[in-house]
Amino acid sequence: MAFFNSLSPRAVATSALLLTSFAQDALARPSPDPKAPWVKNTGLGKKKMANRLKRAIMGDKRAVETPFCSETLATEIKAPKPNVWGPLADVEVASVVEWLFAQSNLNLTVTEEAGGWDNTIQLVEAMWPNKTDVLSFVDGDGPAPTKYAHVVLNNRATEDPHYADIIVGPLPLDNATARWEPLEYPYTKKNGGKVRNLDADSDRLYLEWLFKIGASIADITLDMWNGTAIGLENDTLSIWGIDPLWQDDGEIIRWDTFWNIPTGDFDDMTLLPLGLYFSSEVSGRDPSKWQLRGWLYNNIFYETTEAFRAAYWSEGFVKNGPNVDGDWARTDQNGVVPEMDKAQGPVIVAPAGARFAVDHKEKYVEWMDWSFYVGFSRDTGPGLFDIRYKGERLVYELSLQEALAHYAGNDPMNSGTAYLDSFYGFGPYTFELVKGYDCPAYATYMNTSFYVNEETRTHIDSLCLFEYVADYPMQRHTTSDYVSVTKNTYFVIRSIATIGNYDYQQSFSFFLDGSFAVEVRASGYIQSAYFAGNEDYGFKIHDNLSGSMHDHVLNFKADFDVLGTNNSIELMTMVPVSRSYPWSAGKVRNTMALERKFIETEDESRFNWGPNSATQVLIVNENERNKHGELRGYRVLPYKGTAHLTVQNSTNLGVAAQWANHDIQITKQKNSEQKAYHAFNTQDVHDPPVNFDKYFDGESVRNEDIVLWLNLGMHHVPHTGDLPNTVQTTAHSGIQFMPSNYFDIDQSRRTVNQVRINYSNGSAEVEEFGQFKASTDGTCGGTCKLNYLPLEPEH
Amino acid sequence: MAFFNSLSPRAVATSALLLTSFAQDALARPSPDPKAPWVKNTGLGKKKMANRLKRAIMGDKRAVETPFCSETLATEIKAPKPNVWGPLADVEVASVVEWLFAQSNLNLTVTEEAGGWDNTIQLVEAMWPNKTDVLSFVDGDGPAPTKYAHVVLNNRATEDPHYADIIVGPLPLDNATARWEPLEYPYTKKNGGKVRNLDADSDRLYLEWLFKIGASIADITLDMWNGTAIGLENDTLSIWGIDPLWQDDGEIIRWDTFWNIPTGDFDDMTLLPLGLYFSSEVSGRDPSKWQLRGWLYNNIFYETTEAFRAAYWSEGFVKNGPNVDGDWARTDQNGVVPEMDKAQGPVIVAPAGARFAVDHKEKYVEWMDWSFYVGFSRDTGPGLFDIRYKGERLVYELSLQEALAHYAGNDPMNSGTAYLDSFYGFGPYTFELVKGYDCPAYATYMNTSFYVNEETRTHIDSLCLFEYVADYPMQRHTTSDYVSVTKNTYFVIRSIATIGNYDYQQSFSFFLDGSFAVEVRASGYIQSAYFAGNEDYGFKIHDNLSGSMHDHVLNFKADFDVLGTNNSIELMTMVPVSRSYPWSAGKVRNTMALERKFIETEDESRFNWGPNSATQVLIVNENERNKHGELRGYRVLPYKGTAHLTVQNSTNLGVAAQWANHDIQITKQKNSEQKAYHAFNTQDVHDPPVNFDKYFDGESVRNEDIVLWLNLGMHHVPHTGDLPNTVQTTAHSGIQFMPSNYFDIDQSRRTVNQVRINYSNGSAEVEEFGQFKASTDGTCGGTCKLNYLPLEPEH
Repeated sequence: MAFFNSLSPRAVATSALLLTSFAQDALARPSPDPKAPWVKNTGLGKKKMANRLKRAIMGDKRAVETPFCSETLATEIKAPKPNVWGPLADVEVASVVEWLFAQSNLNLTVTEEAGGWDNTIQLVEAMWPNKTDVLSFVDGDGPAPTKYAHVVLNNRATEDPHYADIIVGPLPLDNATARWEPLEYPYTKKNGGKVRNLDADSDRLYLEWLFKIGASIADITLDMWNGTAIGLENDTLSIWGIDPLWQDDGEIIRWDTFWNIPTGDFDDMTLLPLGLYFSSEVSGRDPSKWQLRGWLYNNIFYETTEAFRAAYWSEGFVKNGPNVDGDWARTDQNGVVPEMDKAQGPVIVAPAGARFAVDHKEKYVEWMDWSFYVGFSRDTGPGLFDIRYKGERLVYELSLQEALAHYAGNDPMNSGTAYLDSFYGFGPYTFELVKGYDCPAYATYMNTSFYVNEETRTHIDSLCLFEYVADYPMQRHTTSDYVSVTKNTYFVIRSIATIGNYDYQQSFSFFLDGSFAVEVRASGYIQSAYFAGNEDYGFKIHDNLSGSMHDHVLNFKADFDVLGTNNSIELMTMVPVSRSYPWSAGKVRNTMALERKFIETEDESRFNWGPNSATQVLIVNENERNKHGELRGYRVLPYKGTAHLTVQNSTNLGVAAQWANHDIQITKQKNSEQKAYHAFNTQDVHDPPVNFDKYFDGESVRNEDIVLWLNLGMHHVPHTGDLPNTVQTTAHSGIQFMPSNYFDIDQSRRTVNQVRINYSNGSAEVEEFGQFKASTDGTCGGTCKLNYLPLEPEH
Repeated sequence: MAFFNSLSPRAVATSALLLTSFAQDALARPSPDPKAPWVKNTGLGKKKMANRLKRAIMGDKRAVETPFCSETLATEIKAPKPNVWGPLADVEVASVVEWLFAQSNLNLTVTEEAGGWDNTIQLVEAMWPNKTDVLSFVDGDGPAPTKYAHVVLNNRATEDPHYADIIVGPLPLDNATARWEPLEYPYTKKNGGKVRNLDADSDRLYLEWLFKIGASIADITLDMWNGTAIGLENDTLSIWGIDPLWQDDGEIIRWDTFWNIPTGDFDDMTLLPLGLYFSSEVSGRDPSKWQLRGWLYNNIFYETTEAFRAAYWSEGFVKNGPNVDGDWARTDQNGVVPEMDKAQGPVIVAPAGARFAVDHKEKYVEWMDWSFYVGFSRDTGPGLFDIRYKGERLVYELSLQEALAHYAGNDPMNSGTAYLDSFYGFGPYTFELVKGYDCPAYATYMNTSFYVNEETRTHIDSLCLFEYVADYPMQRHTTSDYVSVTKNTYFVIRSIATIGNYDYQQSFSFFLDGSFAVEVRASGYIQSAYFAGNEDYGFKIHDNLSGSMHDHVLNFKADFDVLGTNNSIELMTMVPVSRSYPWSAGKVRNTMALERKFIETEDESRFNWGPNSATQVLIVNENERNKHGELRGYRVLPYKGTAHLTVQNSTNLGVAAQWANHDIQITKQKNSEQKAYHAFNTQDVHDPPVNFDKYFDGESVRNEDIVLWLNLGMHHVPHTGDLPNTVQTTAHSGIQFMPSNYFDIDQSRRTVNQVRINYSNGSAEVEEFGQFKASTDGTCGGTCKLNYLPLEPEH
């Protein structure tokens, strides 16, 4: 473990997947074994293991928490077409790996045997096909797009280590036709799909460098914190630092800082900074040329270790206290239990089982009139494709692009941190969900897979799909004669990616009225700052701790196809006006009216939500008017807070995250502009593989196939309520898509789960529209019998 | 019924309560009979009635919809103090009425016997005491504040009809001490609590006037719409118009328009405008002096009926079509039922019964560490008082003040409409909730009462209180060794007021982390416009129909007392900065920082939510720092969309709704500035009883007892999806209050309804913190047995 003590939580997580010696490996099992991760290697017999699995799934050792139906899961159906955004089969991955190793010019080494100067295969996954190659297939009789593997090579057998994006195919591989070529066309930087690798030496030389520096001031760390960070098993301190590294003036600068290693069993290191920072220039691969550039403590900079040591041991040196692990930093139950909390709270159940259908193999989902495919990628986790309502596509792609967490501070650690989490990847960290907690106990689950070390691994039950009933109705109206009210039952597909300290929950929701939404909530541990001098950058939230201010900005790609691919963006704004009218007797009236305009080109297509929410952003098809002459479309609106990046021209980011600067951005859909991000943008922030700014070059976005790039996010100034973890009541962001003159009337009128009670004649007549009746004896009706999961005794 | 055909839906609703001959009376029963409204006068035997009641409550004729516990309701407790915001007892109302009738100088007539020239008692309700009189009582050993009745007299026995606010007391009345006096001090207009009554003749002369005009063009209405509006039973047309009336230049101007009366049994008249408008000058009480001022059709103004008739019957007159009732306007199930919808959807249940406690008599509620009292008023319905966490008050009052619906249009009807709904009153329209639809079936309900015609009536089960479990967790974190996740169970108190066409759902929610929220959702029928010429004011949404654009703005008073009454508002903004640091090697870094300022006086206390949500609004106690030196407080943040009024200096509103112009406004708490509104502000918009602007007179709001006036709302441009009713997925607004360094750590750590699953050693160990276990045999555990409500057969 000591080896990993000096990687950031994000880096540790990465390493855990790149290497196999880590406990986290227990979460990553070879596909397709559908067992819970924690039953691996238990040594228990099959029956005991199954029992334990059942119990683990229910989060309960002794009994199921809620009754549920044995037939509660989604109906299995066959997708209309194969999922062209689906993963490679294990055998396809294996064939690609085998073929790559056969290409001697690639000079590849098996990952587990590779050293710092070997080339390895970093990633093999499905290459999502170009939209232009997909439409004729999903919409008509066209052929399936040719399948290719997207491969990332980690070429370190060189003085200039780099990642290389290549494609390999066509699949299935045939030695006669198989070829690889650099992947370049989707990126704005055209250099053969290569980007330098600043982390090439992170797994050995970098740690040795840090431990050497840790050792060089062991006298001070022992004096100040009674501990060391020198690479030993009994180290009590950790050293890690900024991301991305600074890349200015031809130098590569690290800033690292010391952290207390938690003394308990909790993951709270990011709450235990110690306030001592040092800088290193680490260009090139020869550590003998690396330079320590200085130390910072209590906002005083020392150019050398000697200067820092002299100051430290001199009289009057001000030492601030450490941040020390304790119950305040641990997520377990803590404090007096509210009396009523000891009884069981409300529980949602699905007495008739799932009312939706799934093709597990193709990751295809149908709920009521909605359907979609789920794609999954290493970089960004799950995304939805070909979202249709009644068979008509609304959205070609709705998917996370990137998650930025940009910090600021009086110290170089916080000032220098701006995580771009696709570097770590959402896919590998989309972990198993906790049933009854992350999702309802009755949810249907899907597995997700990711590549590591020449094979595919699977996180079981890492996507959940479920219906829920809102605590408020969809519609209601009381009159003097009757009351009418309709339930608001909706559908959710959810995943949670834990990237180091933070847990990002991503939910796509679909509603009966034709609206749908994407939401993100955040929990987990904040990355905090040492308090000294950080008053302008956060609250002081514990003994010597600052809740380091930061912006979360998460970009989503929404490639709408409203009644075809040719769409436009209409902005409709409510504006105050002063006007006279034929009937106003010559008087000017202060009132309001609508102003409409279309966005013509990419020159005017980057903007923010308007003041007072007065502007509607409408995606319309100008060739598709409804029978009343209005443009059919969908409206995009924030409904749970959004944010774009506060920092302007961030020194940390260069041009690596230019998508973060506005709330909404619209581009013409192009195969060469498929993603707002590149996973390795952090490696070359001034000349990154994808510079999003370059997408905006004046092209028409009117009556074109257009893409919306939408930012969700949250300005986060952690306060004491973020201890030990950020809570999801307040850490949320969401954007909603609602029909705008798309349908003739509200589509939720179609549900039978509504009631009208007539009382005009003094008695009550209840109209229930033939809705399903539960039987009165406690059994399920409809598709299944209410049934419990019996646990067999474990001897 | 014909009599009411020519009142607006809002006015009909009002009349239904002021008169007793209306079917709506079935919803208004004398207190305290706790029966469902629709069992009144059924003539059924007691057992049959009870059965029917049970079925009605469950919204099901044959069987209960979901199993629930017979002991599911909230524990009954005794409030620590009497509710000083509670209603008058029936006997107190009766005593006040009796005493008032004994004051011969008031010249009162019993409402049912009163004509247009009689004085009546419009309202008798509890006068909420001044905060200064309450604190020593609720916080210490001080005496209960003296109880008074707030009475509104409708003085019409005069050429200058007016409403008069008076107080009567002290209660209980004693002939020796009882007195009345004008109520003036809470209002900015100081004229003895009187405001003119523009509606004095609405119940007879006004209708006669409209029907006379309707009759004068019966030839045209018969030709154009095959109907009449002349006051007959078989009228198929209705006439009603703007609110408030225009009050400029010493004139009182009405604009009225024709509507089709629905041909079915639905309440959809507001979807059936016909596009013919006329104006009347109606000053004074002598109809012989009232003047028809002209007609408008198809955007052409005719000064006289003769001119309109001549044009109408001339060649080439353009007639547009009517809006005709049909299924498109009716809320019943409509369209093909989605196949899966025929099975029962998910249901939330409370197996252990309610986990909260209520004093029904005092309307006092305790959930977990939260407690509050519910007040209720005719004007604004329910409000919360003395909201405490662990016995420490956070909020003195959180209550709706006013709901504005400001329309605009090319026609005078829509241009002239700006409802201020306290005029109609939220209290009388806070109707019974539909169990299992408006609130979960297991909710606990409270009744509410209102005054009408010298007595108190009750709407049973018109407030619901329930726990719910969110579809997402409160907290979670996955690590390489364990996963920790906590349920998000929250508490809601909800009411729905249907004011004419619109249903306003108001929910107050409380969470385990110490956050709470107020939310409004809207459903019901939109008030639409005739399409002609209204392109700049809405979408065309049906044959000849425009979805008339309008702003909903709902003001809430939030009188926070954070650790005492002396509070301040701190604005903390994340701003981009360019700075160099001791460690930045002389380079300027583009980053961000916090800027803080306090609002000093009412001169700077009216503002809007800042761009990019960058500014936190914090209510802090500057004398109460936590142990880390930070100010303890609460943050106010919009979380589901908010809106202030688009229109500037509205011609309709004068200065009657000056609270609507900003998102947030802060005043010093004063007994003389208790409410943002007055229910009769519409009666004198240029000199209303409460001009909110006058509250802002430079007083200090720093380290003072301060009040926040917060606007929720929604800019609404109805589209086809608003037909037949607006849906609550998208018609929502909410503001959240979250602790900001108020507690030491997240308070949700205290719940046992969390789990930690350890899997570091390869097997799963589940820690559940002793949380409640449901038994496995389907029975409830804990406080009750799972039980069904058996329905006896009805012969």
